[in-house]
Amino acid sequence: MSTQNARRLSAGMVGGGIGADIGKTHRFGMRMDDRYSLDAGVFGRDVEESAGVASSLGVATERTYASYQEMAAAEAARQDGIDVAIVATPNDSHFEVAKAFLERGISVVCEKPLTRSSSTARQLVDLAERHDAILAVPHCYSAYPMVREAARMVSDGRLGRLTFVDVEHASGWAATPLELTGHKQASWRTDPDVAGFPSVVGDLGTHGYHLARYITGLEADRVSAQLHTLVPGRKVFDNATVALEFSEGVPGRLWASMAATGHNHGLRIRVFGDEGSLEWQHEDPHHLTFQDLEGTTTIFTHGLSSLSEDSARLTRVGLGHPEGFLEAFGNFYRDLADELEARRDARPSTIRELSFPTGIDGLIGVQFVEAVAASHAAGSAWTVPGSVADRDAEIAAADAELREVGGN
Amino acid sequence: MSTQNARRLSAGMVGGGIGADIGKTHRFGMRMDDRYSLDAGVFGRDVEESAGVASSLGVATERTYASYQEMAAAEAARQDGIDVAIVATPNDSHFEVAKAFLERGISVVCEKPLTRSSSTARQLVDLAERHDAILAVPHCYSAYPMVREAARMVSDGRLGRLTFVDVEHASGWAATPLELTGHKQASWRTDPDVAGFPSVVGDLGTHGYHLARYITGLEADRVSAQLHTLVPGRKVFDNATVALEFSEGVPGRLWASMAATGHNHGLRIRVFGDEGSLEWQHEDPHHLTFQDLEGTTTIFTHGLSSLSEDSARLTRVGLGHPEGFLEAFGNFYRDLADELEARRDARPSTIRELSFPTGIDGLIGVQFVEAVAASHAAGSAWTVPGSVADRDAEIAAADAELREVGGN
Amino acid sequence: MSTQNARRLSAGMVGGGIGADIGKTHRFGMRMDDRYSLDAGVFGRDVEESAGVASSLGVATERTYASYQEMAAAEAARQDGIDVAIVATPNDSHFEVAKAFLERGISVVCEKPLTRSSSTARQLVDLAERHDAILAVPHCYSAYPMVREAARMVSDGRLGRLTFVDVEHASGWAATPLELTGHKQASWRTDPDVAGFPSVVGDLGTHGYHLARYITGLEADRVSAQLHTLVPGRKVFDNATVALEFSEGVPGRLWASMAATGHNHGLRIRVFGDEGSLEWQHEDPHHLTFQDLEGTTTIFTHGLSSLSEDSARLTRVGLGHPEGFLEAFGNFYRDLADELEARRDARPSTIRELSFPTGIDGLIGVQFVEAVAASHAAGSAWTVPGSVADRDAEIAAADAELREVGGN
Amino acid sequence: MSTQNARRLSAGMVGGGIGADIGKTHRFGMRMDDRYSLDAGVFGRDVEESAGVASSLGVATERTYASYQEMAAAEAARQDGIDVAIVATPNDSHFEVAKAFLERGISVVCEKPLTRSSSTARQLVDLAERHDAILAVPHCYSAYPMVREAARMVSDGRLGRLTFVDVEHASGWAATPLELTGHKQASWRTDPDVAGFPSVVGDLGTHGYHLARYITGLEADRVSAQLHTLVPGRKVFDNATVALEFSEGVPGRLWASMAATGHNHGLRIRVFGDEGSLEWQHEDPHHLTFQDLEGTTTIFTHGLSSLSEDSARLTRVGLGHPEGFLEAFGNFYRDLADELEARRDARPSTIRELSFPTGIDGLIGVQFVEAVAASHAAGSAWTVPGSVADRDAEIAAADAELREVGGN
Repeated sequence: MSTQNARRLSAGMVGGGIGADIGKTHRFGMRMDDRYSLDAGVFGRDVEESAGVASSLGVATERTYASYQEMAAAEAARQDGIDVAIVATPNDSHFEVAKAFLERGISVVCEKPLTRSSSTARQLVDLAERHDAILAVPHCYSAYPMVREAARMVSDGRLGRLTFVDVEHASGWAATPLELTGHKQASWRTDPDVAGFPSVVGDLGTHGYHLARYITGLEADRVSAQLHTLVPGRKVFDNATVALEFSEGVPGRLWASMAATGHNHGLRIRVFGDEGSLEWQHEDPHHLTFQDLEGTTTIFTHGLSSLSEDSARLTRVGLGHPEGFLEAFGNFYRDLADELEARRDARPSTIRELSFPTGIDGLIGVQFVEAVAASHAAGSAWTVPGSVADRDAEIAAADAELREVGGN
Repeated sequence: MSTQNARRLSAGMVGGGIGADIGKTHRFGMRMDDRYSLDAGVFGRDVEESAGVASSLGVATERTYASYQEMAAAEAARQDGIDVAIVATPNDSHFEVAKAFLERGISVVCEKPLTRSSSTARQLVDLAERHDAILAVPHCYSAYPMVREAARMVSDGRLGRLTFVDVEHASGWAATPLELTGHKQASWRTDPDVAGFPSVVGDLGTHGYHLARYITGLEADRVSAQLHTLVPGRKVFDNATVALEFSEGVPGRLWASMAATGHNHGLRIRVFGDEGSLEWQHEDPHHLTFQDLEGTTTIFTHGLSSLSEDSARLTRVGLGHPEGFLEAFGNFYRDLADELEARRDARPSTIRELSFPTGIDGLIGVQFVEAVAASHAAGSAWTVPGSVADRDAEIAAADAELREVGGN
Repeated sequence: MSTQNARRLSAGMVGGGIGADIGKTHRFGMRMDDRYSLDAGVFGRDVEESAGVASSLGVATERTYASYQEMAAAEAARQDGIDVAIVATPNDSHFEVAKAFLERGISVVCEKPLTRSSSTARQLVDLAERHDAILAVPHCYSAYPMVREAARMVSDGRLGRLTFVDVEHASGWAATPLELTGHKQASWRTDPDVAGFPSVVGDLGTHGYHLARYITGLEADRVSAQLHTLVPGRKVFDNATVALEFSEGVPGRLWASMAATGHNHGLRIRVFGDEGSLEWQHEDPHHLTFQDLEGTTTIFTHGLSSLSEDSARLTRVGLGHPEGFLEAFGNFYRDLADELEARRDARPSTIRELSFPTGIDGLIGVQFVEAVAASHAAGSAWTVPGSVADRDAEIAAADAELREVGGN
Repeated sequence: MSTQNARRLSAGMVGGGIGADIGKTHRFGMRMDDRYSLDAGVFGRDVEESAGVASSLGVATERTYASYQEMAAAEAARQDGIDVAIVATPNDSHFEVAKAFLERGISVVCEKPLTRSSSTARQLVDLAERHDAILAVPHCYSAYPMVREAARMVSDGRLGRLTFVDVEHASGWAATPLELTGHKQASWRTDPDVAGFPSVVGDLGTHGYHLARYITGLEADRVSAQLHTLVPGRKVFDNATVALEFSEGVPGRLWASMAATGHNHGLRIRVFGDEGSLEWQHEDPHHLTFQDLEGTTTIFTHGLSSLSEDSARLTRVGLGHPEGFLEAFGNFYRDLADELEARRDARPSTIRELSFPTGIDGLIGVQFVEAVAASHAAGSAWTVPGSVADRDAEIAAADAELREVGGN
């Protein structure tokens, strides 16, 4: 549904063409509250295909570009250039694409893992800061109202002192060697040159890790990890188990898998404190479960009048009307729009305690991936995220083991 | 998100202003797939308020009208007039508003219950047919992919011969005398002059009844009903229980309530056949449960690769990513867009076996309301929907009893 | 496990031989707390078979009888005769068997429906009273701790004023014409001469009705009912839907079915009040769900320290350790043992507000069956339980219709 | 319920007096199928208290002993001495008590953890073999019919090649410093001299580990573990996370906790294979969930006619009638009775592929506890169960760390 509102934010997209579900998801999210206009883009490497997608999306021919470089240059030069660029390409190009926009002062939404090494991730964070641009990373699960509610419950002390954190993103989507069938997403996600060896950690593990950080407010001080290849012959690790020691000495666990046979999605978190615990899972996102010390269970539903302001602000319909993944993406884009508009209109920042994830979160995610890989390569030795100096050495070690284990 | 696509369908809205959640829901649904442009409207009776809403929605001032009559006349006269008018006003004005557009050949989406009597409902159906306009009724629960899947399972014979149907839409939203607090929706829904005496039957009962018809393909041959006022002093019936005899002699039950304390939403259906049964509930809409003769339970999730074409067509993201109420509204508007475009472009009708509900469904819904009221007034006597000649008499009878029971 | 405790109660059984699951269930229940000794019995009509069962159960040969008449006479004559007789025969013999023991002052546990007519049921109640014997009816679902908890919550006012009651016992056990396969239980339960025409109402409906009465403390003032035969050719009604008006004007519904395809058991109750609602279902018996006015859901588990004394008293293991059907039977027999011992030892009665069901409950159950049949025969006319003067006339009417509907 | 059956097995109990729930649970289990007679015992260290318990259980005065030594000697000397001794004392006495009976050829049921070190556990296993006695360990969760079904599904290849195992027994029973309140069980379970430092691993971890072994048929080749003290000041570890490498290179996880706030019981297992996965949890023990490669979920219920013989054999009532923890204990005792009777009557062994856990399972459990403690003490280094030569050294190391972490 279009409106004539001249104040709508202007957006461009790189990637997200045919076969790229994530691009569609971003567009649904942007469209949800009608605060963005998709005005420019490069929708894939095939020029004709890209033009077709652009046309179907109503993007003008003159703003359908042959490359992201061209797009960044041209849009930066326009009076009415885009306010934000969405980077929805495979992992290996995130850095170059995001860099091109950020260094021209154009805000960026970049898919996770932000980049393939913490040094490049840090560069993006620095670039964004230097050029006063926003760098947002769509860990959109944190935009679900009931996740916001969970974070609020923790910060309000409803759980007491935190004692244990358990998170998993164990999906079954690639429990078979899907990459051998020509499946586009499976192909690049199991290609170590594109997705990295610890592929599943970057893809799903970072979602789980961000969710844990977002709800608890804790950071991992150190990790002890194991990487596995559950599908024989696969060229990347498709399963990871991690023991974590969070700040304040809180222990925890994380499990990431793309080969958890039968699981439909598999993102789920449980947080324990000395006065209660909570549980949230993505396959039933509009409920949040709380258990008290005695063992009584309370289920809160999205839309209840007693929920926090954070949760209420993100309620579109009301009690009993489920909202899902697209609404969560919409929430991410709504929070982002608040901030983009504030900057455009030179108003104070709208970023709240509970808001959209940024480049810092992306960087922390990449550091987590590196620490997991390094710990695994060192026989599950405890490893401090951010301390891994030379990632290539770790990658090489992981590579060596993988070739052995995976029989490649 | 806006595009320049000149071919987008043009829509107008009557009602759906401040405090009217249903108007927002329609707009979310229309926006979902970016196939409508909201170009005209009357957003409430207060002219200034309406102008404010119009402006925030990007509706041009010259197409923000003072009345639906003016709007119908002006839009019909424009070359680029609206393709469809959304009627989102309280029940008592549905007939006049819808009529104004239909008789000018403008298609209409009209909220349920379609009108307050079957004779006026039939007039709208006839008008739509005579003027070659579409009259669509947003029983949007039937647009959930897993409801489509349920209907497909029944028509494919997976349940065998149907034996029993149980449906309920028992919500707790008005379990207290909310109307005494100034709550806008509660006020008109408990005002017999606006919502009718059997208010809950028209509001929630028709949803349940449509869902049962949609999934089973059956119609009620006769009903035996009871109406109750669970909240003392309430001026309408807020609870109804109905025994049904569907076509082919299949027995069934329906329960509608706005006073089922604690229930968040409460729409749920179970269909039994001699080879299996299924269950779907709106509070977990992306799952469909099937039980076989032995008692084994199978749960199907939205996005599974084995689901029917109907379900797959309406899948936006994929397995494990919940879609909710707004997506269902989006599906309704998508199916409608297919048909509106086909008519605009003089292509063959796109209406499939499983498609959006029309005025006929709206008429059948009103007949159901009348039959329930009549049966109740006659001591639960079996009553044939469509046979109630003089509704006013029945209303009077119900009225009389209500005054007695409710102590008004 | 046996003990030498001479004070154990002595029990005898009529029926419950080979192929009779209910007899085994009674024995498990009696054994649970080791307060009964099974000392006498007639385990079926086949003398040899009965002797085999008796021997396997350790019943002495001299107390294994050829008929219930013989057993009643002999046991009444013994110094160490049985304290209680368990009647676990098909419905048509309940009256004669129970009568034989009661009129000799021997307490009786008699399966439901107590008898086939309210006049005979009343005779048993009177006999028990006259001979100072206990007549207990094993509606054992009311012996689940979480059902006791539900009843306590209602009586403590946690739900406020009751507004609606919905109960169903809709099983799928006989969704196929099992009786044609020689299935023993299906054969007699679908034989109108043994189980009566409204078979499913007597078998499962009375359980649901008792559960509703037990939890709410309400009685049905009148009913409007429908009986169906979902399995073609079946000689009894296998499905029933009932609208109820409980005391204090509280409306309700009941659904009984033996042909709800796919259902494993299907006993479930929901009770609504103006301050909250509760739900319990037998397939998950150790949980009780409460929903408050706002819509927040609380789940209580058997064994929680905050539960009522009634519930705690019946907890054998503790929180998190599920107890099931046999434990419920054990609870029935435990409460009964308290009372039998009190009478034996001339102590005051132990019967509490929430205790085991007696002959009065059995009589009310039979009156309910009669009212349902009568209402159905009269086109769902509202009928007062206990008012059906001549049940034979109603049976005849039901019979006539059944023959028509069922095509027999 | 007692019978005169002279062939009933004779049992004695050590421990299980007042306040000892586990003793009651054993007695319920033994009583369930009426195949044991409790004839002898020492029910606690207080002689009078023990006599009181004995009397209430119908144990003769002359077979109520002052000590287990006396009991073992006296019962071994009797013609009609006990067939089996139940050891239900705290952990630290298991070895001495079990040894006293086994070396006299009396079979033993000994609670887990079998002993406090693998060397003593191995001695018991050897003793049992040498004296031709049965040593059974009540990991009774493996006696649930749906756990048997799970094991059968794995061995039948329904999951394909196993890929991942996830098990947890995370309870919230001691999430507060219950030991400070005089709570009997909490006192000894948090006393390192009685329960050992890795208390929760021995208590709950061994249940989880046994369940994983029982269902998958795999053994852990090595573990990498973390021990935590979630309740400050507690003298033992109350939380443990373990990464496992099972035989055939299958990775897995285990989590044991007595401080998982809010959890009622918390035993749950998920097993993944390359063709499907299954899940079972103790709080809903009569269901077993299977998910196929596509993501469709199937729920099997205890009592379904299609279940395996193992499951059917242990079904007491039937579909839809929940059986719980006591029935599982009953199943353990039933399987054990089969074998005890076979030995008594000199018939062939009845031990099946899926049967009751024995001393070997107990020994493996103790080795697991030792390996977890050793890995933790060595900074989560991978450790091979059974390889830990000097447990005392590990205990000392764990002790040292605990004092540091726990602040003792």
